[in-house]
Amino acid sequence: MESRTMVKMEAFLRLCAMMLSILAACLVGLDSQTKLLFNTIERKATFRDLDALFVLVHVDSVVAGYNLLQLGRCFISARFEGSLKGSYLYLAWVCFLLDQIAVYVSFGANSAALQASVLAITGARSFQWMKLCNRYTRFCVQIGGALFCSYAASLFMAVISSISAFNLFRLYSPKQFLLLKFN
Amino acid sequence: MESRTMVKMEAFLRLCAMMLSILAACLVGLDSQTKLLFNTIERKATFRDLDALFVLVHVDSVVAGYNLLQLGRCFISARFEGSLKGSYLYLAWVCFLLDQIAVYVSFGANSAALQASVLAITGARSFQWMKLCNRYTRFCVQIGGALFCSYAASLFMAVISSISAFNLFRLYSPKQFLLLKFN
Repeated sequence: MESRTMVKMEAFLRLCAMMLSILAACLVGLDSQTKLLFNTIERKATFRDLDALFVLVHVDSVVAGYNLLQLGRCFISARFEGSLKGSYLYLAWVCFLLDQIAVYVSFGANSAALQASVLAITGARSFQWMKLCNRYTRFCVQIGGALFCSYAASLFMAVISSISAFNLFRLYSPKQFLLLKFN
Repeated sequence: MESRTMVKMEAFLRLCAMMLSILAACLVGLDSQTKLLFNTIERKATFRDLDALFVLVHVDSVVAGYNLLQLGRCFISARFEGSLKGSYLYLAWVCFLLDQIAVYVSFGANSAALQASVLAITGARSFQWMKLCNRYTRFCVQIGGALFCSYAASLFMAVISSISAFNLFRLYSPKQFLLLKFN
């Protein structure tokens, strides 16, 4: 298996992560349900009611955009493989660091949104925070689907960040610290 | 810089991560504050009131234990450097995978606890979830300190996971996929 196959695999994983992020952002962002409370007040639930969901929509959008840019980079490095040798090490370091940041930010946003959603399902009796999902059921189910997609995207991002670590650290010598080996 | 220095650096980082995890687990676990509500009911706030804090205490304890085990591994691999060559690749893979799991689990638990704590500070007006930190101020400040320590531990874990990725992937050839190079 040569390096071009590796780039194709990375591009496929990035495409999956991007699709899932877009799907998750749309599912959360377009989710809304209107309910009549106490037969008088009409309340509309949207993602803006909960900060964690608001953050999740924006993080997922940024992650999707980032993966689109990286897909372009994959395409270019597959086309012009030979002519980019000199700057390859710097590019590998930049990709590694950006991928690390992207995966931790996306994972953190997902966990926060999951925690907020769990509180909306269970409530917190000792705090007198009431459950909400028994009233806004359809809304909550859609958020659940979005969180599933978003976690799947994070999982793909974790694999991608391992691949970019592989692409970077394989350039170094196994015996001497931070010595480059081009063989 | 030879590999022994690298092991020492890893051991130091693991020690820091372990200390910070233990500190965070203790700060959350031993935090409690009693308040008189409506001049009649006495309410005691502990970490058991919020699932996210309960999970955080256990995750931090497990992460601290894991880092202790890995410290032992560092000590052994520094002592008997020569005699472990054969199994080094498998050990590097196991460390890499375990470190990845540890850092994501710890990061996820931190983000969930942070989200729950933010909700306790700000409340959620549209859900009629009331603020709690204006009443249990000392409790909340201690949780804030614990979250800071816990995030610092996660940061150390992220650096450690990069080091274990480096230790693993530097064994592979930069040109051919998954070919080992021992030079």
